[in-house]
Amino acid sequence: MTSQTVEDHSRTPYQLPFPADALAEIVVPQAIPEDERAWVPQADNVWFRPLCLNRSQGYWVNLLRVRKSGVLSRHRHPQAVHGFVLKGRWRYLEHDWVAETGAYVFEAPGETHTLVVPEDVDEMITLFQVNGVMCYVDPWGEVTGYEDVFTKIDLCRKHYSAVGLGAEFVDEFIR
Amino acid sequence: MTSQTVEDHSRTPYQLPFPADALAEIVVPQAIPEDERAWVPQADNVWFRPLCLNRSQGYWVNLLRVRKSGVLSRHRHPQAVHGFVLKGRWRYLEHDWVAETGAYVFEAPGETHTLVVPEDVDEMITLFQVNGVMCYVDPWGEVTGYEDVFTKIDLCRKHYSAVGLGAEFVDEFIR
Repeated sequence: MTSQTVEDHSRTPYQLPFPADALAEIVVPQAIPEDERAWVPQADNVWFRPLCLNRSQGYWVNLLRVRKSGVLSRHRHPQAVHGFVLKGRWRYLEHDWVAETGAYVFEAPGETHTLVVPEDVDEMITLFQVNGVMCYVDPWGEVTGYEDVFTKIDLCRKHYSAVGLGAEFVDEFIR
Repeated sequence: MTSQTVEDHSRTPYQLPFPADALAEIVVPQAIPEDERAWVPQADNVWFRPLCLNRSQGYWVNLLRVRKSGVLSRHRHPQAVHGFVLKGRWRYLEHDWVAETGAYVFEAPGETHTLVVPEDVDEMITLFQVNGVMCYVDPWGEVTGYEDVFTKIDLCRKHYSAVGLGAEFVDEFIR
């Protein structure tokens, strides 16, 4: 996870320098963390674990964890979402398919949906890349709130500070 | 996977229509396919399995599979890459960390690297989102070729046609 920004004129072919202005990569060896405190609560029975909080392009990559009876309330995506189910299964009230472990889902811009976990599933964990914004809406589609990469960063700072990891714990995920 | 484009004035709260111009979602129930033919060969011991081939934004999401002694030769990324290791482990010759099963990696724009699979690993499978282009380079960084979403689509069409799935098999992944 070192930043390689120094020009090295004695380099071997396998030691090309990166551009001096390049950002550092992010490597999270265990995305599903051993430390429970890495999960940030966002609603009853709903948590997220940040992996990349991209402020220059306005998107975030995270694990979403929803436990029995948890609901990610109805929201609209003006930009694309990518999901990959790592554990459990879930569905959207607005669709008739079910996302099982090992499934990939592309959610097209314009999607409005409500994520629910079936009663017989204790826990689901899904890798999501969310671009732009999530607009929370009421049952008739009127906007009631939003989340973007900055509200996610704020939630992380508050939580990590409260649980003793320190507000700066989130910094390694920000680019 | 149905496209919901019809305005329904009798709808219930859970049947909000999507925008008439929205694209259909993609749902791949088993991203790691049972049918071996879904894997598209791209080099010795290297295959990819398309999940989203996004021609409107110029990126692709796929599973990359590399078997023993396979190498994804040195390339540079002008845009960001996201990786999540589903099976096995691998490393880049240019970095000192190893991506193990369950790891997440953000590769910053400007990265040049060569993906190798250690000798004691039979197979690795990683979910990658690659944005823009991969520029293949020689050991000193000079460009020798490239891949983009359109070269990936072409590879898929040729392979799926040759193995009897039909060139149109790729269409469900294109947006």
